[in-house]
Amino acid sequence: MPDDRFRRFPHDHYPPGMKRAPSGILPIIAVDRRSPVPLYRQVYEGYREAIVDRRLRAGQRLPSTRSLASELGISRIPILGAFEQLLAEGYFESRVGAGTFVAHSLPDEGPPPDAREMARGAAAQVRPGKRVVSRASELLSPTAAPWLGGHGAFRLSAPALDPFPFQVWSSLMARHSRNPTRSQLAYGDPMGYRPFREALAEYLRTSRAVRCEPEQIMVVSGSQQALELSARVLLDPRSPVWMEEPGYAGARDVLTMAGARLVPVPVDEEGLDVSAGIARCANARAAYVTPSHQYPLGGTLSATRRLQLLDWAQRSGAWILEDDYDSEYRYESLPISALQGLDRDARVIYIGTFSKVLFPALRVGYLVLPADLVPRFARVRDAMDIFPPTLFQAVLTDFITEGHFARHLRKTRQLYRERRTVLVDALTRELGGTVEVLGARAGMHLVAALPKGFQDRAISERAAKEGLWAMPLSACYLAGDSRQGLVLGYGGTDARRIPDAVRRLRKVILAGRAGSGAPRR
Amino acid sequence: MPDDRFRRFPHDHYPPGMKRAPSGILPIIAVDRRSPVPLYRQVYEGYREAIVDRRLRAGQRLPSTRSLASELGISRIPILGAFEQLLAEGYFESRVGAGTFVAHSLPDEGPPPDAREMARGAAAQVRPGKRVVSRASELLSPTAAPWLGGHGAFRLSAPALDPFPFQVWSSLMARHSRNPTRSQLAYGDPMGYRPFREALAEYLRTSRAVRCEPEQIMVVSGSQQALELSARVLLDPRSPVWMEEPGYAGARDVLTMAGARLVPVPVDEEGLDVSAGIARCANARAAYVTPSHQYPLGGTLSATRRLQLLDWAQRSGAWILEDDYDSEYRYESLPISALQGLDRDARVIYIGTFSKVLFPALRVGYLVLPADLVPRFARVRDAMDIFPPTLFQAVLTDFITEGHFARHLRKTRQLYRERRTVLVDALTRELGGTVEVLGARAGMHLVAALPKGFQDRAISERAAKEGLWAMPLSACYLAGDSRQGLVLGYGGTDARRIPDAVRRLRKVILAGRAGSGAPRR
Repeated sequence: MPDDRFRRFPHDHYPPGMKRAPSGILPIIAVDRRSPVPLYRQVYEGYREAIVDRRLRAGQRLPSTRSLASELGISRIPILGAFEQLLAEGYFESRVGAGTFVAHSLPDEGPPPDAREMARGAAAQVRPGKRVVSRASELLSPTAAPWLGGHGAFRLSAPALDPFPFQVWSSLMARHSRNPTRSQLAYGDPMGYRPFREALAEYLRTSRAVRCEPEQIMVVSGSQQALELSARVLLDPRSPVWMEEPGYAGARDVLTMAGARLVPVPVDEEGLDVSAGIARCANARAAYVTPSHQYPLGGTLSATRRLQLLDWAQRSGAWILEDDYDSEYRYESLPISALQGLDRDARVIYIGTFSKVLFPALRVGYLVLPADLVPRFARVRDAMDIFPPTLFQAVLTDFITEGHFARHLRKTRQLYRERRTVLVDALTRELGGTVEVLGARAGMHLVAALPKGFQDRAISERAAKEGLWAMPLSACYLAGDSRQGLVLGYGGTDARRIPDAVRRLRKVILAGRAGSGAPRR
Repeated sequence: MPDDRFRRFPHDHYPPGMKRAPSGILPIIAVDRRSPVPLYRQVYEGYREAIVDRRLRAGQRLPSTRSLASELGISRIPILGAFEQLLAEGYFESRVGAGTFVAHSLPDEGPPPDAREMARGAAAQVRPGKRVVSRASELLSPTAAPWLGGHGAFRLSAPALDPFPFQVWSSLMARHSRNPTRSQLAYGDPMGYRPFREALAEYLRTSRAVRCEPEQIMVVSGSQQALELSARVLLDPRSPVWMEEPGYAGARDVLTMAGARLVPVPVDEEGLDVSAGIARCANARAAYVTPSHQYPLGGTLSATRRLQLLDWAQRSGAWILEDDYDSEYRYESLPISALQGLDRDARVIYIGTFSKVLFPALRVGYLVLPADLVPRFARVRDAMDIFPPTLFQAVLTDFITEGHFARHLRKTRQLYRERRTVLVDALTRELGGTVEVLGARAGMHLVAALPKGFQDRAISERAAKEGLWAMPLSACYLAGDSRQGLVLGYGGTDARRIPDAVRRLRKVILAGRAGSGAPRR
């Protein structure tokens, strides 16, 4: 039965190891009924050419002759003839009960090429010519930081995944995927899905003392996109912007790409030094701040400075970008109210994210906007990426309103408190005379500050080789004169593994003092 | 049993209508053990203040006294006392078997405020001051187009949702949500999820004749973000860019916001007039084209012009942005090969999306990049929004490799072919003497061009009042001298409803000739 060979099987019946066999997608084959070339020959040559061209690859599954005939609008006879010939010549092979495939024996690519290699290869192949890219994209420093090269102990921004209620989550996913409403599938509001914004508004009012209505909330893919959108709407090229020094490199990237002039403003244990900011650049267009838990040093912006910052913003006509990235975790008191809640002049753009309280691959964050800026943010968002995916928002709405979110926050707060305590104890025990622990009252990271004579970048590079992902504090500085230290994440590191990781880190740090070149100044 | 009143119930046991009752999220209440004010009084006043301040709202559910006690680090006794008093005074109310809530009888907000009203209200409340926004955001025209105000007959970019295999989809969703790997939850590659890029590369090589390796593919949220990223990487302020005239407003928005100088280049039935482009601006930095199915007129870029365009790009050092937005649907021949497949000089940035072949709320699209641009695109993407959500990519990988995607394409191609035929027949029958049908060989929309004397914007506005969502052709032009017509989507309109919708459209169009002011010139 020649037919059987080309019949397609439902995927459940694939033999093991064939799941990744593709899909019966129809290739582009030119068939011209008016051509003097017989149809079976056209099909044969079309396939042979696609294989020689490497558009079709070894092992790739072919569509059934029936669907091919129907798509090409010709009878199956010439297709069966062409397939017979391609089988006979070894271009195709058939497997009983599985279908017809491009022959495995054909030479294939070998290991997948590395992108950089490809770039070299491509550059060699293509004719020489101008290849001009934007100046803004050239301002970004490369990110290939060794301390971001893996997952494991001390990795920043890695939340604990084990306590996440995956059963609840997947049943909410399935519920919303099975019977979506039409409006959950179509183009949506650039501000986000309305019920989710209502749930968020309630959460933010209750738990963060943010003053807001659902109309002011825009759902985005995380704090990075929130910053990007804010820069798009609020900044012009060369607008001066206050940046915490040291501060968050992600914010620095966004502001750099927007062409802003970054003004480093020092921070201390009370957070941003507002007076220093005013002295350096009173007419800044905006200020970027992390008031609840300064990134990376961990200070809390004091009440006096909060009022001073809001007052400066109103007097000078500046915007405040409040990045409240991990405020839900505070271990020695209840969470601190958001700066936004104190603002009476609608100067604060409030930014939050689920990347840390749930998990990063979700890509859900939010902005709380001054009401008069809502139409403008919505318009720019529409031009940038139209609207956020609806399903996650619908699922998160239930996740919040049914109480799972509050429960997860409580569970992880308890867990991170424990991990933090274990880490602080281990650092004190192993490195008490060397490092000073900063910013351990909140969040999912702390700083182990190093005395002069240590070079944090060199330490981080060596630590990465040991599978310890400690970020150098100096990487958070804009200007040259930086404090040395290690920014250590503990959210994703099991408490039982922390003491050993600290012992290994101790070795790397102390080797750093002896070896690796001259002290810093 | 006072305890029972405050106990929380799992959401399944909520009485009907209480699903939206929130979440037991802990409010910010200051409790100071050293204060002379008794603890129960502090809790009582904290809640009363939050309610008076409207941070807590009528009907909102309160956390259990047990979890509140644990969070505040105090005993339950003062909390029970405070709750008793708040209940007695009518701030709280309790419902048997459901928990404790902020009283429904408290005055609440009434209907949710409209964003524009809020903006006015906010402007009235806040102290006057400078509120400077970016010049780029002011260049965008408002989008409040009446023809985008609803969903129904002729709405553009609305795919058919009924044939989508939701059962398959939701079981893939549940499968991937239940047992995700660690790497599927953590921060991912700015280029996207590797297995998905492999499946995409195979699909694009096979079905679109795109020359690519997985390394060149970047996953984005749709063609809009693909354009936005391309503009970021490739264009500087005032870079001249060819724009199809008439063309796609979404691309115009991106290029406008990037500060590019838009050069309108006319299109005809062979697509973009490359010679006219060269004559107008030979040194453009980039050209935006829709070669498979020109948007909106529907022409296919001819072979001669394809080669001419590629040759110009190589000679002048320009980039080509190929937006292949609906090429999978072609009714009188197999799909046309992508322009990218002809490019030997790595000049083409290829853009595709799942918004039309699956559904828009998915927010998944992709770029195929010249290999030498990969590191730069990845870096800019990292700065813009880091990486795309992983789950949809994992699900789509299975959806493609298990054959569901190919099956859905075949089903919808058949469906759209039928809808198109019914629409063309109805237009010919009802409006044959008046309109000329353009671009009906492919895609999910066609153009009903109108003779002089008709004003398409006025017709579209009236049609919207009748629930007919026809976009005016003139809205697709950059320059003033535009052809009049209606862009009619048929992907989301049931074939049985099309004849009646066309009869109603006929009335609106013919009323347009008689009434609505003078002819256009």
